[in-house]
Amino acid sequence: VAAAVLFMSTSLDGFVTGPNDGPGNPLGDGGARLHEWILPEGGGDHRAAATRLTGVNRQAFDEVMATGAVVTGRQTFEPAQGWGGDHHDGVPVYVLSRGPAPDWAAGWPGVRYVDDLAFAMGEAKRAAGEREVLVHGARLAARAVREGLLDEIQVHVVPVLLGSGRSLFDTLGTGPHDLERVRVLEGEEGVTHLRYRLRR
Amino acid sequence: VAAAVLFMSTSLDGFVTGPNDGPGNPLGDGGARLHEWILPEGGGDHRAAATRLTGVNRQAFDEVMATGAVVTGRQTFEPAQGWGGDHHDGVPVYVLSRGPAPDWAAGWPGVRYVDDLAFAMGEAKRAAGEREVLVHGARLAARAVREGLLDEIQVHVVPVLLGSGRSLFDTLGTGPHDLERVRVLEGEEGVTHLRYRLRR
Repeated sequence: VAAAVLFMSTSLDGFVTGPNDGPGNPLGDGGARLHEWILPEGGGDHRAAATRLTGVNRQAFDEVMATGAVVTGRQTFEPAQGWGGDHHDGVPVYVLSRGPAPDWAAGWPGVRYVDDLAFAMGEAKRAAGEREVLVHGARLAARAVREGLLDEIQVHVVPVLLGSGRSLFDTLGTGPHDLERVRVLEGEEGVTHLRYRLRR
Repeated sequence: VAAAVLFMSTSLDGFVTGPNDGPGNPLGDGGARLHEWILPEGGGDHRAAATRLTGVNRQAFDEVMATGAVVTGRQTFEPAQGWGGDHHDGVPVYVLSRGPAPDWAAGWPGVRYVDDLAFAMGEAKRAAGEREVLVHGARLAARAVREGLLDEIQVHVVPVLLGSGRSLFDTLGTGPHDLERVRVLEGEEGVTHLRYRLRR
């Protein structure tokens, strides 16, 4: 069974958004800087922008796109308009939510609203087969760590100090959780890709 | 002139202490984990403990000890009892403080209390000559970044999620500050040493 992996860009000072993040400002003030290595224009379509990537950063991006299923929080999925029903290549998307899907997403064949994280992870791993499961959303990832359901963390460390914002695993609350370093890749534009496995 | 360098151990989630840090608990709950790569027993003398280090971690530790002067905040210096008046090898120690030295430190020849950070950095660089200046203390470092007085940051990323605590540059408040990645070293025990230069 493949691993459930959180992919996350962070600043050197550990922030995953700038300050004042919220609806309408999902990355926070200045937070687009964290994603410039993929989206130099600050927005738009990831896949189109990524065609310019080469080398290590290309490899890191391709790993995200090679995942076989997505598990995401509702608070990540809905502001992104559910990626139009297809995060990438039509892989199934499991949205953790206490309530049902909104009307606009209810008919999408690849999207399933579920209220149990362990169930979502299990279904996603089954659907992904040999491929990894992409875990999306900081709050969902923190919960997955607490419940022992996250297998790996792939952090893209961007060479910037944001000074304030929301920290990676801001809502984790418990610790320490020991990690095993799996891989270090020195990417282009000063981005360093660090991969860890959660120790059980 | 050599660089003023902040050396700091952090968790993958960007914390430099565990929660509930304060007088009597300077590393916060569980924060000793961040320093285990140097001090496996959770305390004691750095230099004695470091004799067991080899390879990359030895190199990283030796770089700290090769600095030619120290600039530190009073809130770092005094809880550490001023390192007995000698941080290492008798290099001069500049303590940033609005008030005078306490009686117990007033007679130490290598220690000077100063109330101006730019002055302290200038004096320390002069004293250090070709060697680097060791910058100590998270609040002092944040102020040095804001005032354009910090040259480099050497972060030792420890493979653990602390979940809560004090973030690196917790008090920085301003950003973004762009960095140039200078070096990546994969240390023993999963510790990754990332070195950056502040862009001006």
